[in-house]
Amino acid sequence: MSVGFELIARDGDARAGRVTTAHGVFETPAFMPVGTAATVKAMAPADLRRVGAEILLANTYHLMLRPGAERLERLGGLHRFMNWEGPILTDSGGFQVLSLAKRREVREDGVAFRSHLDGALWDLTPERAVAIQKSLGADIAMVLDECPPFPIEKGRVAESTARSMRWAARSKAAFEVREGHGLFGINQGGVYEDLRAESAEALTSIGFDGYGVGGLAVGEGQEQMFAVLDHVVPLFPRDKPRYLMGVGKPEDLLGAVARGIDMFDCVLPTRSGRTGQAFTHRGSVNLRNARHADDPRPLDEACGCATCGGYSRAYLNHLVRADEILSAMLLTAHNLHFYLRLMRGMGEAIQERRFTDFKAGFEAELAKGDIAPV
Amino acid sequence: MSVGFELIARDGDARAGRVTTAHGVFETPAFMPVGTAATVKAMAPADLRRVGAEILLANTYHLMLRPGAERLERLGGLHRFMNWEGPILTDSGGFQVLSLAKRREVREDGVAFRSHLDGALWDLTPERAVAIQKSLGADIAMVLDECPPFPIEKGRVAESTARSMRWAARSKAAFEVREGHGLFGINQGGVYEDLRAESAEALTSIGFDGYGVGGLAVGEGQEQMFAVLDHVVPLFPRDKPRYLMGVGKPEDLLGAVARGIDMFDCVLPTRSGRTGQAFTHRGSVNLRNARHADDPRPLDEACGCATCGGYSRAYLNHLVRADEILSAMLLTAHNLHFYLRLMRGMGEAIQERRFTDFKAGFEAELAKGDIAPV
Repeated sequence: MSVGFELIARDGDARAGRVTTAHGVFETPAFMPVGTAATVKAMAPADLRRVGAEILLANTYHLMLRPGAERLERLGGLHRFMNWEGPILTDSGGFQVLSLAKRREVREDGVAFRSHLDGALWDLTPERAVAIQKSLGADIAMVLDECPPFPIEKGRVAESTARSMRWAARSKAAFEVREGHGLFGINQGGVYEDLRAESAEALTSIGFDGYGVGGLAVGEGQEQMFAVLDHVVPLFPRDKPRYLMGVGKPEDLLGAVARGIDMFDCVLPTRSGRTGQAFTHRGSVNLRNARHADDPRPLDEACGCATCGGYSRAYLNHLVRADEILSAMLLTAHNLHFYLRLMRGMGEAIQERRFTDFKAGFEAELAKGDIAPV
Repeated sequence: MSVGFELIARDGDARAGRVTTAHGVFETPAFMPVGTAATVKAMAPADLRRVGAEILLANTYHLMLRPGAERLERLGGLHRFMNWEGPILTDSGGFQVLSLAKRREVREDGVAFRSHLDGALWDLTPERAVAIQKSLGADIAMVLDECPPFPIEKGRVAESTARSMRWAARSKAAFEVREGHGLFGINQGGVYEDLRAESAEALTSIGFDGYGVGGLAVGEGQEQMFAVLDHVVPLFPRDKPRYLMGVGKPEDLLGAVARGIDMFDCVLPTRSGRTGQAFTHRGSVNLRNARHADDPRPLDEACGCATCGGYSRAYLNHLVRADEILSAMLLTAHNLHFYLRLMRGMGEAIQERRFTDFKAGFEAELAKGDIAPV
């Protein structure tokens, strides 16, 4: 019943595990490529498999507006719609309502807003968010929450967090238990330890299939983010997966796994792939830069992806400058391959009890910066 | 030596053959996907193989401006640069100079123009066009010619065609014979039979590895285009491939093959794929249309491509409306698969001496129009 979580190994606070859903298994630490509008931009499902993706994230806010949850349900759900047979986690829509929608108003009942597409008026309540995610067919659904901006005074964070916890309870009450499907709660509380602790206590007493950490990577910086994780992760049950939402850079993933986080999602590898930015084991590279125009070497000689196997930096530079779709395809594939290989590397290191060395070695390489020009 | 052409079968005037180049063999009738800037837009080379592409076309004008012919030569040529191991035909740059460049001036020596990218001044002569195509490593190079606009008075077409024939002779003189590499002449003369005949005679007396028909599909209409082909194709040597440049719709390909044409290139399947237009055996379909929003059926049930195997019209409609890169990827792949399957179908029909039936059957299906909405 629900989604299953098997803890395979621990190394310090870092964990390796396995999550079982209605659409199959994924290993943790896991990175979920972001498939905002029922597509991971510039990647076909076969491409996603090829780079090692096991679970995708999709955005409820975007999908409820277009093509619409009822339509998606009639068409057999999100998996069939986008031709992805593996697990899918959907967010609740709350984050995008607050970052994208117009004239939003947060009330005790839920949030009212106007679509950024056509200005139509919408209501999203905790119960409706759960129902929509069921229509989509999400393997893992998230509770509706409010992600407060940063910086913001503590009193307003406290008020917002308390309401998010009431929404969490309503979400749980509305969630229909089905084999292989789960609901995750979301910890809030900004950078305030006491609020984070109260939120964690509220969530664990409600009881969820996993625990998200929300409201981070909104400008507080890596140090404060890690401080929050140091404080709050130990408050979650050990036998459930923990998910740091919307994070992050490779260094963030290493530090968060070290603190006991199991799951991540972030637009960074995909969005960067569309703007000529690539991740390598020697740090990030801007392919638009003229230094690459005559460089016959691949992006990352240590990389086994199809982009590095077939194309030079010179070609990638040309594609980025010519604004060719293939540049988004090749760089997105490379970046996701890099991220997913990092996750696999962390998982293996944890199982072999050498995570600290792995992390230090990876960070040392990253800090070297890009290879010298030819 | 040069490129080889083996005529395998004839059925009426339609021909099936095989062209051997330095980078392998392609069957005719052949359609060449257009890889303007060293990439067929939205398609990786593996995708091109998957849809059945055997030879690509690349545009000398675009490549000489960016990334530059000298750079491409230093990097090992176009094949290595774009990771395509099969044959490549390059145009001479003349057509794009006249359609894209700024402040162009055609003189006896060649054409002077300013780059549409940065306004830089360039000169393109017949000799330089041949040299650039050698730098690119083209298996088949085209002579520099001038493609007159339509409509235009006969005197100006005559003058332009005569100069293009002088350029053709200079191109041939400048072309260095190498194993597996060939140079094609280009027939001009607008819609005027006598000018077309004079041009064909000039070209055949120079002697080329193949014969292009240029200056068509510029607004004269299918009837006049076919009339020109009826008149001029019989004037070409039988033992060389004939290439109708920049054409066309599926109906154009059927009619041109019936008149003895062996090779084609056109941006239609790729450009249409980026604007939500798809080709099916029942005619063309605009995926942006709301009639597809709830349609669970594939684009074309008779199609064996990955797009039709994995995705509904509803999903394609969603991707087009959301302006997702995946819509360009899936529709371009489908459209090229459709075109290349049509070419293969024509080739098989010619070899089995049933081309007339094949053509009539294909045209009858096309004329039915799209399937009724669900």
